[in-house]
Amino acid sequence: MEHTEIGVVHTAVTRADRESVEALSAYGVATIHEAMGRVGLMRPYIRPVYPGAGLCGTAVTVLLQPGDNWMMHVAAEQIQDGDVVVAACTTESEDGFFGELLATSFRARGCRGLVIDGGVRDVADLEEMGFPVFSRAVNAKGTVKATLGSVNVPVVCANALVRPGDVVVADVDGVVVVPRERAAEVAAAAAKREANEESKRQQFRAGELGLDMYGMREPLAALGLRYED
Amino acid sequence: MEHTEIGVVHTAVTRADRESVEALSAYGVATIHEAMGRVGLMRPYIRPVYPGAGLCGTAVTVLLQPGDNWMMHVAAEQIQDGDVVVAACTTESEDGFFGELLATSFRARGCRGLVIDGGVRDVADLEEMGFPVFSRAVNAKGTVKATLGSVNVPVVCANALVRPGDVVVADVDGVVVVPRERAAEVAAAAAKREANEESKRQQFRAGELGLDMYGMREPLAALGLRYED
Amino acid sequence: MEHTEIGVVHTAVTRADRESVEALSAYGVATIHEAMGRVGLMRPYIRPVYPGAGLCGTAVTVLLQPGDNWMMHVAAEQIQDGDVVVAACTTESEDGFFGELLATSFRARGCRGLVIDGGVRDVADLEEMGFPVFSRAVNAKGTVKATLGSVNVPVVCANALVRPGDVVVADVDGVVVVPRERAAEVAAAAAKREANEESKRQQFRAGELGLDMYGMREPLAALGLRYED
Amino acid sequence: MEHTEIGVVHTAVTRADRESVEALSAYGVATIHEAMGRVGLMRPYIRPVYPGAGLCGTAVTVLLQPGDNWMMHVAAEQIQDGDVVVAACTTESEDGFFGELLATSFRARGCRGLVIDGGVRDVADLEEMGFPVFSRAVNAKGTVKATLGSVNVPVVCANALVRPGDVVVADVDGVVVVPRERAAEVAAAAAKREANEESKRQQFRAGELGLDMYGMREPLAALGLRYED
Amino acid sequence: MEHTEIGVVHTAVTRADRESVEALSAYGVATIHEAMGRVGLMRPYIRPVYPGAGLCGTAVTVLLQPGDNWMMHVAAEQIQDGDVVVAACTTESEDGFFGELLATSFRARGCRGLVIDGGVRDVADLEEMGFPVFSRAVNAKGTVKATLGSVNVPVVCANALVRPGDVVVADVDGVVVVPRERAAEVAAAAAKREANEESKRQQFRAGELGLDMYGMREPLAALGLRYED
Amino acid sequence: MEHTEIGVVHTAVTRADRESVEALSAYGVATIHEAMGRVGLMRPYIRPVYPGAGLCGTAVTVLLQPGDNWMMHVAAEQIQDGDVVVAACTTESEDGFFGELLATSFRARGCRGLVIDGGVRDVADLEEMGFPVFSRAVNAKGTVKATLGSVNVPVVCANALVRPGDVVVADVDGVVVVPRERAAEVAAAAAKREANEESKRQQFRAGELGLDMYGMREPLAALGLRYED
Repeated sequence: MEHTEIGVVHTAVTRADRESVEALSAYGVATIHEAMGRVGLMRPYIRPVYPGAGLCGTAVTVLLQPGDNWMMHVAAEQIQDGDVVVAACTTESEDGFFGELLATSFRARGCRGLVIDGGVRDVADLEEMGFPVFSRAVNAKGTVKATLGSVNVPVVCANALVRPGDVVVADVDGVVVVPRERAAEVAAAAAKREANEESKRQQFRAGELGLDMYGMREPLAALGLRYED
Repeated sequence: MEHTEIGVVHTAVTRADRESVEALSAYGVATIHEAMGRVGLMRPYIRPVYPGAGLCGTAVTVLLQPGDNWMMHVAAEQIQDGDVVVAACTTESEDGFFGELLATSFRARGCRGLVIDGGVRDVADLEEMGFPVFSRAVNAKGTVKATLGSVNVPVVCANALVRPGDVVVADVDGVVVVPRERAAEVAAAAAKREANEESKRQQFRAGELGLDMYGMREPLAALGLRYED
Repeated sequence: MEHTEIGVVHTAVTRADRESVEALSAYGVATIHEAMGRVGLMRPYIRPVYPGAGLCGTAVTVLLQPGDNWMMHVAAEQIQDGDVVVAACTTESEDGFFGELLATSFRARGCRGLVIDGGVRDVADLEEMGFPVFSRAVNAKGTVKATLGSVNVPVVCANALVRPGDVVVADVDGVVVVPRERAAEVAAAAAKREANEESKRQQFRAGELGLDMYGMREPLAALGLRYED
Repeated sequence: MEHTEIGVVHTAVTRADRESVEALSAYGVATIHEAMGRVGLMRPYIRPVYPGAGLCGTAVTVLLQPGDNWMMHVAAEQIQDGDVVVAACTTESEDGFFGELLATSFRARGCRGLVIDGGVRDVADLEEMGFPVFSRAVNAKGTVKATLGSVNVPVVCANALVRPGDVVVADVDGVVVVPRERAAEVAAAAAKREANEESKRQQFRAGELGLDMYGMREPLAALGLRYED
Repeated sequence: MEHTEIGVVHTAVTRADRESVEALSAYGVATIHEAMGRVGLMRPYIRPVYPGAGLCGTAVTVLLQPGDNWMMHVAAEQIQDGDVVVAACTTESEDGFFGELLATSFRARGCRGLVIDGGVRDVADLEEMGFPVFSRAVNAKGTVKATLGSVNVPVVCANALVRPGDVVVADVDGVVVVPRERAAEVAAAAAKREANEESKRQQFRAGELGLDMYGMREPLAALGLRYED
Repeated sequence: MEHTEIGVVHTAVTRADRESVEALSAYGVATIHEAMGRVGLMRPYIRPVYPGAGLCGTAVTVLLQPGDNWMMHVAAEQIQDGDVVVAACTTESEDGFFGELLATSFRARGCRGLVIDGGVRDVADLEEMGFPVFSRAVNAKGTVKATLGSVNVPVVCANALVRPGDVVVADVDGVVVVPRERAAEVAAAAAKREANEESKRQQFRAGELGLDMYGMREPLAALGLRYED
């Protein structure tokens, strides 16, 4: 993996295979995070900008400078059908780096959505377009085009490492990053996990207790849990 | 009142009487808080996880450990019809302690909802189920089952003291805790307050001013309020 | 401009002309902020209390004391048709300064909405009434009527200076303040900006890149942007 | 325990016995918190206002109203030698409720310090006086004297329940509350814990590992910890 | 007052008279804020970057762009002996806009310190130099020089309006802004207030209660304060 | 680079060469961050726990679970002389993962300090020992030893990627991570940068302006900066 560096655009990206991305798109973020062994989540301050937003795709990464969205335009050219853009920043910045015009451009290139550790604007338009965005802020503040960042370098976005081509899945529960090499394996584990849940759901619905279903009474007692009137 | 203690489950809970709980369920959180003399509110960082969520019931309390939801399963057994679960934590933790499977279990036991000073996940499912949850975060992060906490001890949740059996009411305006001994009295005071508001509403609608309705002009002048062109 | 002062109500306010306010009401906050030269925004922690809320009007300003909404009643009398109330506080306070009864009163006076650097309650009622409110918090906590503040003095609200009569516009992207003397000029600039965007939108939709549309390739190269496989 | 109520001063307080308070004053907050079974801590946002501040004493509790320090004067009369004042607020408020004059008054009554879920001012003077204060903020903002709160009712301060007469200990690591009935027991447990630490310290200093001292290798292996080159 | 505008440097500034500034420098921030009638404070998140920092002087104002400190160099030329620089930003940005080299430059021009709603670095050097800085963050992050802001326009800094030439006073309790026209009056009021405090201090030290000194018992009783055993 | 994984300890770590680490220890964090091309900084919420703390060494990385410090003991065995421990967590957790006993153990193994995206306690002891710690919180809250994490896997700590063997430098300005392969190059660039600063410092001290030294007047004018009386 190359180091994070400023002033470079990597044009050759190894993307996770389409089939695995498609498979992952069937699962929620919580399920995928569990299937990965409980790693890969972004910080929960990244939230959908409208209700019902969700996305799954391969990452085109962007490293922004504070208050400057120039690299978003550079990134647009690198988007392929099925990609999502993941935008990190060299520092904390909640300006409106992205709005309806860039969404129009990104969508025309085949982009499935945006995850950004920054702010966005034109949120009513984004909802009307159905262009899913997950961000740390909504902010009308405009940005400049003055300083270089990078495209398709590894970035840390909301405390998660994202490399170009990794799979990014986002829904109301959060955002998870699946390394491209693990995409197939994680999709399989997610399927297995979900299959396993339906029988539990039925048991819970019938009033059975997790204490019994999971055999918890003995270990709880062993640790000394006391029941008192 | 017993002290907060770790490693104990109290099985005998004195719940507020059903009639008072029913009566309280007719009022909003702001009204009940006023009727109580302006005490009993949780901090406003506790928010509904979906629009329109609301709950009213008697508290089963849970004291969680950070990143550990074991006690939620222990609590499930203590739930009776009409209860709500109030989950505090021994420290600040925003992990996803609760999701759709536990909601299914809780509901099967008669639970009317959850208030948690922590995170929850499967929020889309919770909305679809209509299982009301008020939390400090939405977070896909999974939890372990390794360390004892307690059930039905007095807890401090989002800066409010909650004892098992107290009435908890939550809506879009916040969460209020009514001590079980005061439930009937507070319901009566809420009724009185609300009855009193309709006439004021009519006066305001007719363009009358609070300055006149409440006789404020004199005390304002006495304190020296000046009107200038 | 008079200094911010406590204990005074200015009854003579020079409002922005109606025509300019009407013109500004046609544009979003992001557009107006750009048209002003990228100044005038409140901090993005001010958020609409229900989806779809929006407002545009001339400011009646209020300077509140913490946990005290007395001045809201004083302000009601100063409201004219087409005004919005902008409430700042002498300190940070998230109590519920405003609810459905005051909204009823304000509306009866011709008020188009509220922007408040504090908390509000009765949010479900406000949504049902369609009375738009932008606030820093939702909070059931009641307030007292004990200490003087001011009405129609210049205030700083969420880090933006607002003078009585200035135009305030709010939507999902944020809140912007247009000085009354600049209202006509800014409305014209907003119109020009918006007219300019439609052609760009078409180009983006057709797959054209900002890199080409805006002639960015040369300046990026001049700063040393490298493309690598 | 009486409920938290507004407008009352309890003059008869059962204080923890002096001997236990004296004993507890020998230990750090982390040790006492462990000796209590890991409960009783305030949230860590309460910080000392100058380096080296520390306190231990029996609580006189105050329930403040936002931006109003009237009850601090009411509390002064209730202070006995060896007390500390613990001030909670009915809401979040960071105004400067306390400064050098009140510290002079409190000290003259025998007060050993203040813990406040609010702001304080005159911090340079407090340091010079050596009057220890733990607060959530430093803030020059003045307060009014207009609205009733209470003195010596149970309060929740920074998410911890404090009853009049409980022991409060604070140092750079935080603030812990010891229920008055448990003071002797906790002091004994703290002594035992501290005695136990010196031998561990010697072993660590000699380069021994916790892995061996605590017999951790086997349980780690049992859970599947892998060592790889 | 001119509006806040981007891209302009005002070279003619009306500064508060030297005598008043000198007089104000003798008082603490809390005292001056009270003397002004409890207005003029910045938000308390602005903190000294080293213990004991304090400043008093006439404001040279700077409007920065996020992550860009170009205007600091423009401001340096406008500094006169006795000035302090007050730097606001068009948005929230905590980058390190200022360090030891700029401090050296500012000091050579006669500058008495900096108040900045942003980040600074080289804090150890600043302390060694004794150059007082009050900021919202300490941050090593470097900034660019690419986008215009302004110098000596009115700015809102940490929620306080500051005009060029106003007096700014900062100490451990916070930062207060005195409008240049009010400097003499406020200094006089501060002197009066401080004179008044010494006798109170003596009374408190002798054990007298505020309840008696300020005649509070009657109004408290009138509001219904109850004393109970 | 291996992926972040739970339940593994890597015993073979390629550390940055000692000479480069030694060289880097001569420079401040701001200088090194600039020398790296303005990347590699942790978020500024990581702060020294006592004044004057500083560290420079090669990273032993730890991935903690919330409220669980078991892996700190596992990490102790992997420490070599000149290492610093960098502890990330699978989620946000501010408990007291580290105190004086662990510091004694770490020091005995040759450890030069700790950087932790969590809380620590026994801060007075740490200062007395002179064991430098940089953390997000000070918190007396104790932790358990129940759940596996990892040691010497790549971690993201306070939004910065840290691999085992990378160089970590921390001082009052923040924390910077130098990839082990870049250590020599960055040290050289830092030396060059610092050499360059002394002449500038002399010029600034003599009253010269950055406007002239850096030739800024022309580009500022080109962008349209206006000077007005």
